[in-house]
Amino acid sequence: MSRKLISVVSVLEEKHKAQIRAAAEMNGFEALFFDGPGQARPFLAEAEIVFGHDAELAHITPRLRWLCTPFAGVDQLIGQTVFTSAQAVLTNSSGAYGVTISEHVVLMILEVLRRQAEYGALLRRKEWKRDLPVRSIRGSRITLLGTGDIGKESAKRLRAFDPASLTGVNRSGKNPGSLFGRVFAQDEMETALSGTDILVAALPGTPQTHRLLNARRLSLLPDQALVVNVGRGSAVDQKALEKELRKGRLFAALDVFEQEPIPRDDPIWDCPNLLMTPHVAGNMMLPYTKDRIVSLFLEDFENYCAGRPLKRRVDPARGY
Amino acid sequence: MSRKLISVVSVLEEKHKAQIRAAAEMNGFEALFFDGPGQARPFLAEAEIVFGHDAELAHITPRLRWLCTPFAGVDQLIGQTVFTSAQAVLTNSSGAYGVTISEHVVLMILEVLRRQAEYGALLRRKEWKRDLPVRSIRGSRITLLGTGDIGKESAKRLRAFDPASLTGVNRSGKNPGSLFGRVFAQDEMETALSGTDILVAALPGTPQTHRLLNARRLSLLPDQALVVNVGRGSAVDQKALEKELRKGRLFAALDVFEQEPIPRDDPIWDCPNLLMTPHVAGNMMLPYTKDRIVSLFLEDFENYCAGRPLKRRVDPARGY
Repeated sequence: MSRKLISVVSVLEEKHKAQIRAAAEMNGFEALFFDGPGQARPFLAEAEIVFGHDAELAHITPRLRWLCTPFAGVDQLIGQTVFTSAQAVLTNSSGAYGVTISEHVVLMILEVLRRQAEYGALLRRKEWKRDLPVRSIRGSRITLLGTGDIGKESAKRLRAFDPASLTGVNRSGKNPGSLFGRVFAQDEMETALSGTDILVAALPGTPQTHRLLNARRLSLLPDQALVVNVGRGSAVDQKALEKELRKGRLFAALDVFEQEPIPRDDPIWDCPNLLMTPHVAGNMMLPYTKDRIVSLFLEDFENYCAGRPLKRRVDPARGY
Repeated sequence: MSRKLISVVSVLEEKHKAQIRAAAEMNGFEALFFDGPGQARPFLAEAEIVFGHDAELAHITPRLRWLCTPFAGVDQLIGQTVFTSAQAVLTNSSGAYGVTISEHVVLMILEVLRRQAEYGALLRRKEWKRDLPVRSIRGSRITLLGTGDIGKESAKRLRAFDPASLTGVNRSGKNPGSLFGRVFAQDEMETALSGTDILVAALPGTPQTHRLLNARRLSLLPDQALVVNVGRGSAVDQKALEKELRKGRLFAALDVFEQEPIPRDDPIWDCPNLLMTPHVAGNMMLPYTKDRIVSLFLEDFENYCAGRPLKRRVDPARGY
């Protein structure tokens, strides 16, 4: 019986499956492809490697040695005991989403600063109004919470717009290259907040980031500051932010929320000063993202087969 | 009787007026400020210098020596005989709009590629749908028609998104610096069009640019290409473009139109694949733009007073 590599990633195209199949066969694996765990279930009992995300995959795979999620965030998988035992390792696809999420970040910032939603609403009524006051990235003070792939790709793009400053905040306070003017450690972030016009949160969902942006920290932001969240909804105290938005003191562009989908009766649907997107900043609909997910998986598959450490292994204690 | 400098620019702030007034007084001028030509009329007979835009300013200023328009485009002024005689020179504010228009260009491109208008419409109905196919600037072939201030500032920002190529098209074919991978002369532009995923038109309104993007040239663009126009509506055959959009073959983001405001019964209001904005890419609502307009005017005011050639003098034959 050959070793089994089971893929449960619905967005894969034929070319991706062919790549994975070829690599699998060269290493004595049989690759099987399913669009969801339901279909895959009869085969998962034999899976040594699973490429997929659903949390239940960790439970119904007694022979599992390695689970690679095509996502960057692992908060839904991290509590599974299988990854804290010696039985199996968990890797993520960190590095596949920087391009698409950073484009989303720039889009959200410009859409809010240039009041594009309001111009859109005016034009839907065939009203020709041209004099809404707009703002620019040029001369704005930008702070990025998180200096990983997403933070770095965002910084690279935002620099080209000549902001007044580009500050990073991460756990260590170390500057990962020349993209950021300066980098604060997380416990110094409050110093950064009071001098921030545009705050971009690209943080993983961990106990350390839970409601990191609470009411007190949000209150440190200057009037009219913009909060962009493309990480996890849990990083922001959503009620506290909503209060600032309703007062007209802050602006926000949120791709992630405390509860998703947003309940139909949630008052946030009608919140002013808020641009919402339905958790699409880093979805897998961009062909480049799919290509990267597969190539990152195959890179670690080579490592796995050669007995080398996996490059994108998640530390269950750290949460990313 | 002192020499008169008359400003007819409604968006000037007190600080701008103070700057102009100070410079005027240092050079023996009296500076007068009005919000429109109606108010200014009784004083215009004595004006030696006018800072303003309305075409009638050229007619009611018998002593005019210099008119500086706060706009970049001069197509509404260029036909005035006063500027083809030796009596008066015309300058524009070219160089003031690159920052704001280039931000608009990036916003439009990302909004179309990431299908932001459709996500907005879904969320207005409280629908949580996440799987629209999106595209990226990364890997796209971009062509900029016009390599002046707007083209260069756009190229600078778009480069940071890692396009596959960044091609300029201008009159001479000369590459203005290292921002463009290559530059074609205008008569070679058709070579560029067939390899263009994103076409940005930032052209002045001149007889040479009139309907430059006609049906035949639009047909050279590959399927699903995006046309962004932030120059003049006259550069595009709007009916021909509309036909391509209605076929679903091309996408467009238009800030300028053949007729503005768009007539209420114009079918373009309901055209698919089209993102419209009401000629706001380069309006004067951005504080930075106002600051630049004033500093560029004052730079040429110093030149004027010193008897030096004016830096932003428009060539009436060329049209910019």
